[in-house]
Amino acid sequence: MSFAEYFPIYNKLTAEEQEILSAAAYKRTAPAGTLLHCGDAMCLGIVVIRSGQLRAFITSDEGREITMYRLFERDVCLLTASCVMTNIQFDITITAEKDSEFWIIPPNVYQDLTANSAPLANYTNDVMAAHFTEVMWLMEQIMWKSFDKRLAAFLLEESVLEQTPQLKITHEKIANHMGSAREVVTRMLRYFQNEGMVNLTRGGIEIIDEDALAQLSET
Amino acid sequence: MSFAEYFPIYNKLTAEEQEILSAAAYKRTAPAGTLLHCGDAMCLGIVVIRSGQLRAFITSDEGREITMYRLFERDVCLLTASCVMTNIQFDITITAEKDSEFWIIPPNVYQDLTANSAPLANYTNDVMAAHFTEVMWLMEQIMWKSFDKRLAAFLLEESVLEQTPQLKITHEKIANHMGSAREVVTRMLRYFQNEGMVNLTRGGIEIIDEDALAQLSET
Repeated sequence: MSFAEYFPIYNKLTAEEQEILSAAAYKRTAPAGTLLHCGDAMCLGIVVIRSGQLRAFITSDEGREITMYRLFERDVCLLTASCVMTNIQFDITITAEKDSEFWIIPPNVYQDLTANSAPLANYTNDVMAAHFTEVMWLMEQIMWKSFDKRLAAFLLEESVLEQTPQLKITHEKIANHMGSAREVVTRMLRYFQNEGMVNLTRGGIEIIDEDALAQLSET
Repeated sequence: MSFAEYFPIYNKLTAEEQEILSAAAYKRTAPAGTLLHCGDAMCLGIVVIRSGQLRAFITSDEGREITMYRLFERDVCLLTASCVMTNIQFDITITAEKDSEFWIIPPNVYQDLTANSAPLANYTNDVMAAHFTEVMWLMEQIMWKSFDKRLAAFLLEESVLEQTPQLKITHEKIANHMGSAREVVTRMLRYFQNEGMVNLTRGGIEIIDEDALAQLSET
């Protein structure tokens, strides 16, 4: 599969634009854990994901983290090119959460093309609006939903992503996804275990009552 | 002053686009408290503010509120046209916080123009990115800053907006801006009063030690 097949609006661009994009985009692989973007210091470009999983998160001065959103196959990451978006003025960190393969469109190439292409500018808008929506969803969760419901939803989401009820994830990592502290996660997981919803194992969490977790997450 | 002078990229549009925009945009006034947007039920259009102040906020099922951002003279409000932005999938409420005067660009007119105009699509992107940045700033505040610091910053911001240290605002209203409960605001304001930073009066709050509040908000 080629870049053209993975870049969603490739067919809406002019032949000249297609040529410039295809010539400029280059492929890269990144093992899980690779740092792709960190505040203003890095400006990789637009990332078009062929396979794998990226994670966008913010960090506190004390090193706490909270996941804003994740990106999967065929998703496009804009914020890795935030240096060419003057009104994006916040720091976000983006890492490969799994081994990933993607194309990179250099920031200046994308900026130059977008300046003159309504389809590309409108597409950029759509992607930005989708990221904005994910952050607003998270804001609502944080503001109005209690931690037990958020944790239940997180465990179910992980189980769908990993396609298994046997989650291999530490309490520390869950805390980093949720903007919480490890002890808070551990306490709540123990409560879930007492209620028969999960089974805590060495280095993992087994979901044993998916329905109960789903019910809790939806209240 | 005309619409053309208030719409930031009017001069970058073609003569034909300018004509369509000018013909379609209409002026409206809204007294403080007017509801301009509420979820999917309303789709006023793009709002270009001539004077006044708008407030964008989200609400919980129980009626709690938190302010996402405010809009002032010469700002452009996109989310009042969210019906034509397929990837904006969150509910936000927008009201006139002060008596306001603005132009409205009907949603379909804006959508049709933007589909074919790179300058307009890029401008839309810039505005969206600015709103996104404000929400990310708020997310960082909520996640990593304690309530006393956020409240100190809020009081100082209000004092700048209203150009007076004598704030006429209820504890309930502050709670609605900050996503908090009235009692929590009252408790913290009493603490600020004990520390000699504010003076609580009937129906208002007087800032008496701006430096101390500023220092608190910045730690």
